[in-house]
Amino acid sequence: MEIKAYKKDSGYSYTLGAFPTFELLKTRPEIIREIIVHSTFTDRENLEELAGKHNIPVVTNDKLIGRLSDKENCFVIAVFDKYSDRLSSDRPHVVLVNPGNMGNIGTIMRSAVAFGIKDMAIISPGVDIFNPKTVRASMGAEFRMNIRYYDTFDAYMKEFSKHEIFCFMLNATSDLNVENCKHGALYSLVFGNEATGLPNEFLNIGKSIIIPQSDEVDSLNITIAAGVGMFMFTR
Amino acid sequence: MEIKAYKKDSGYSYTLGAFPTFELLKTRPEIIREIIVHSTFTDRENLEELAGKHNIPVVTNDKLIGRLSDKENCFVIAVFDKYSDRLSSDRPHVVLVNPGNMGNIGTIMRSAVAFGIKDMAIISPGVDIFNPKTVRASMGAEFRMNIRYYDTFDAYMKEFSKHEIFCFMLNATSDLNVENCKHGALYSLVFGNEATGLPNEFLNIGKSIIIPQSDEVDSLNITIAAGVGMFMFTR
Repeated sequence: MEIKAYKKDSGYSYTLGAFPTFELLKTRPEIIREIIVHSTFTDRENLEELAGKHNIPVVTNDKLIGRLSDKENCFVIAVFDKYSDRLSSDRPHVVLVNPGNMGNIGTIMRSAVAFGIKDMAIISPGVDIFNPKTVRASMGAEFRMNIRYYDTFDAYMKEFSKHEIFCFMLNATSDLNVENCKHGALYSLVFGNEATGLPNEFLNIGKSIIIPQSDEVDSLNITIAAGVGMFMFTR
Repeated sequence: MEIKAYKKDSGYSYTLGAFPTFELLKTRPEIIREIIVHSTFTDRENLEELAGKHNIPVVTNDKLIGRLSDKENCFVIAVFDKYSDRLSSDRPHVVLVNPGNMGNIGTIMRSAVAFGIKDMAIISPGVDIFNPKTVRASMGAEFRMNIRYYDTFDAYMKEFSKHEIFCFMLNATSDLNVENCKHGALYSLVFGNEATGLPNEFLNIGKSIIIPQSDEVDSLNITIAAGVGMFMFTR
């Protein structure tokens, strides 16, 4: 099979680098088509042992790695089939409304898994979770999550009507503190686009929360807001 | 004066873009040599009014902006003299030990100002706070802080012996929670390098704190750890 540079409409994508490749091998080996290593890759023995358990071919191809990776320090790539997940109805969710930056969404995935939130809804339009840049920013954490795109926030809410909704907004009425983030087992933490935040109509949905912050800065970076919010809700 | 691409050893640096330029104008106008605008810049009137109050020249130079900026959407640049600060002895500090990434340190500055921490010590070696990439990542928040480099952590501690030290480490003994982050008026929050964390000897300095996190990820991104830590300590 000829592997081409990533395209959004293609049926496969690939990891860039050892860490996300091992994460993929540990979590979703069944979707891996093949693993490509650079001839100077130093951890080939471990990789081949793990790949061998799942009959995944490991091939050396320095040229292909050079072509697919834009960084010097990438020595292994796993080509995988794209997949789709359903969100768990019995666990909390993080919901990203129109996320626009692949690095940010990857960082949020990494924080979510770190804090034990394993389900993510993305309200379209939103960046491509299978773009290799997103996968790399998540350090492979996205393979440990269930992630699903929804056309509208209404469609998401209809499917998960038992989830209590908390919207993080700069014009919210409640401060983020221990009292205001009391919740039952099922809840959704909703964050907006990094440039525009959540539209005002979200003030009428569930409970709106602001992370108290100085007006000396424009706002917290979205990855920080999501990190602080998820930390407080999962304590 | 001929403005050249940024060099670490030069006496001046520059902001890239309107937001950090206005931040600099509001906070440290006395260090601005001149402001360069692109002929298509749309907010020139406001800029000239503010610059005029401080007798700062505003000149149009499309070529120079193209040469200094690596992004398409930069329409204004302020050239400024580098400066040095002393940290306040009567306020809390954030301390970064050997930070290695300009984007990360800029994001941490932005969070620090958002949470009201206005003093930052950097233990050398650490990235250059005056590199335009750091300035841009901070959205100009760094101009609102006192920032100082120290050769060693010992040198920092000697100067601020009344500050209670909290070291954020993955092998710490205390979890980050309301109880463990009780503190007096003077405290220092210490974070390590993004790849290596704090060396083990910091376990013997002050109180070590871990942000509870799943072992399913390598660790939280340093900007998230610092954001969560600063949020909890400033509530």
